[in-house]
Amino acid sequence: MRFVVQRDLLIESIQHVMKAISSRVTIPILTGIKIEASKDGIKLTGSDSDISIESFIPKEEDGIINVEEIETGSIVVQAKYFPDIIRKLPLKTVEIVTDDQFQVTILSGGSEFHLNGQDAVEYPQLPVLHTDNSFELKNDLLKELIRQTVFAVSTVETRPILTGVNMRLENDQLDFVATDSHRLASRKIPLSTENDQLDFDNIVIPGKSLAELNKIIDDNEETIMISVTENQILFQTKNLYFLSRLLDGNYPETSRLIPDQSKTTVLTKTKELLQAIDRASLLAKENRNNVVKLQTKANNQLEISSNTPEVGQVTEEVTTDTIEGEELKISFSAKYMIDALKIIQEDRVKIEFTGAMRPFIIRPMDNEQILQLILPVRTY
Amino acid sequence: MRFVVQRDLLIESIQHVMKAISSRVTIPILTGIKIEASKDGIKLTGSDSDISIESFIPKEEDGIINVEEIETGSIVVQAKYFPDIIRKLPLKTVEIVTDDQFQVTILSGGSEFHLNGQDAVEYPQLPVLHTDNSFELKNDLLKELIRQTVFAVSTVETRPILTGVNMRLENDQLDFVATDSHRLASRKIPLSTENDQLDFDNIVIPGKSLAELNKIIDDNEETIMISVTENQILFQTKNLYFLSRLLDGNYPETSRLIPDQSKTTVLTKTKELLQAIDRASLLAKENRNNVVKLQTKANNQLEISSNTPEVGQVTEEVTTDTIEGEELKISFSAKYMIDALKIIQEDRVKIEFTGAMRPFIIRPMDNEQILQLILPVRTY
Repeated sequence: MRFVVQRDLLIESIQHVMKAISSRVTIPILTGIKIEASKDGIKLTGSDSDISIESFIPKEEDGIINVEEIETGSIVVQAKYFPDIIRKLPLKTVEIVTDDQFQVTILSGGSEFHLNGQDAVEYPQLPVLHTDNSFELKNDLLKELIRQTVFAVSTVETRPILTGVNMRLENDQLDFVATDSHRLASRKIPLSTENDQLDFDNIVIPGKSLAELNKIIDDNEETIMISVTENQILFQTKNLYFLSRLLDGNYPETSRLIPDQSKTTVLTKTKELLQAIDRASLLAKENRNNVVKLQTKANNQLEISSNTPEVGQVTEEVTTDTIEGEELKISFSAKYMIDALKIIQEDRVKIEFTGAMRPFIIRPMDNEQILQLILPVRTY
Repeated sequence: MRFVVQRDLLIESIQHVMKAISSRVTIPILTGIKIEASKDGIKLTGSDSDISIESFIPKEEDGIINVEEIETGSIVVQAKYFPDIIRKLPLKTVEIVTDDQFQVTILSGGSEFHLNGQDAVEYPQLPVLHTDNSFELKNDLLKELIRQTVFAVSTVETRPILTGVNMRLENDQLDFVATDSHRLASRKIPLSTENDQLDFDNIVIPGKSLAELNKIIDDNEETIMISVTENQILFQTKNLYFLSRLLDGNYPETSRLIPDQSKTTVLTKTKELLQAIDRASLLAKENRNNVVKLQTKANNQLEISSNTPEVGQVTEEVTTDTIEGEELKISFSAKYMIDALKIIQEDRVKIEFTGAMRPFIIRPMDNEQILQLILPVRTY
């Protein structure tokens, strides 16, 4: 194998596939990056068995030459050293050559590296997805769906299914839901697909996979193709192929958790509430669960407070737009509330309570696509 | 005590005094920040016994009101909570009030914090330096002196004196020297002082003190006053008072370490050499001491190389301006060489070797104020 490649493109590809590479894998060769040179360009692969990422550098793109002097072949290089080496090379191009002893030579200006590589034949074959069960989304919309839900997945393995995000397709609506059983985040979008064959209703994508995917895809209006099989999901753009296993098991039915009525409704400025809760939580950090109290007051005032006797106490007054319904005293995790408010871009937020012991709902005002739910903490 | 202060000034003062505060102190009250309100303004103090920092916010400065409604008094607040609280408050001003139970109330907009404080009488009295043994430096020059030497202090406590920077005054020259016994960094400046009383010749300032001081002082041409007593040094600007203990003991005589002749002299581009050594060290990280080899070649070429059999090897060719004298093969710590080259701002650097087993010297070309020395490693 031999080729000369634009170094910045190689760096970008390495960064992409590194998102799938872990030093804690049971198959040692997966600690490496597979590099394949074909007549069309260079393909890099990284995988930890759960996630596999392929990044392709086409030989030529939009009339610009990316890769030259290709002699086809493949190799696996150690991911511990290769990225830093490429990043620090002196020239804008880098030449990579292998010999039949799996030695990799990296050349750029006065730099000459020789690395011990491994035979690419030893690298596990990635599954090739044959399915028409596909639909398309804009990159930026997919990133929103991920960002607005993935933070709410469970981080403990007691109920593994909750470490994933539930993706559902019903009545031309795509719905992402995540819950760790203490809070829930959901985002819906209308999905107009021309694919009559599209057929899945309820899959669970590991939260980690979506978090890594979100780091790789650019925030633009280009299109990403999503294909679903029984146990895998593939996200595919022009030069990127991101494959993740799906989680086994049935995702709990979450719709019945969502109260269909409310007793107290608060409409207020998102950022002001977020900052008040953030401050109130400063003294609650040493509490179990970082709990703050919220209380409705006269004149559309909300009081948020927290008390840690050995440190001190804090009271935050927030002037809301309106408070309607019953008076309320409720306690909840400041962290959950901060997470929920952070992903709301809208200026104003509506919070619907159904009493101190019932879950409450947070939505942006005039936006039914986002719904978040938090279970209160029993303290009063 | 009571006052209303501009929040950004209070934040800046807190950041300054926090540099001296450690959670690992034997005197519990030193985990707090002392706040004193006098008719002239507000003074904050932080200390870990070794370093003490006072930051003053004058009531009025250049016609701008910084502090209002002062009722004099003092308190100690917990440094674990106070900085975050002040930083996150909603308004540009903050009101701080204490009561006779040492309760501290912090008010800003809708926020009201009550913190348990401590009686400021319990806070250790900082020594007041009475000395005329003082001289002045520009801030930016002092920062250079620190930056160009402090990285070379010892980080192990086997010879405590080497954890400090040796400051000497001789023949109207101020000299900073640091060594960990494997490498040495020194920077001299001419010092024209009008103070005939100035009398110290050899003190040792803890490296940690200088590193913290460097973070606090701004990189400008304002003046800092430096006063020295037998066991303390004070750095003083208009509103800042930075006091450090000195290290006990005699600093080793370092001048005899410096070779007065050289057998091989290399003149080359600083950045190019730095980057080549940085790359060569990539594969040397798992070696003892991160060692690379340097070898002179024909046609003014330097070869820098490193070899870790289980990973691979690297060769860097650097085209120098000139190589004069004997041929040379030498091994040294890449880290020490990188540290040394990083602080040289000049385009070109001169390296003087006296054989593979002798210390070598690194200087910027045409700048005799900076001298660095590195001991080679025995590998050939």
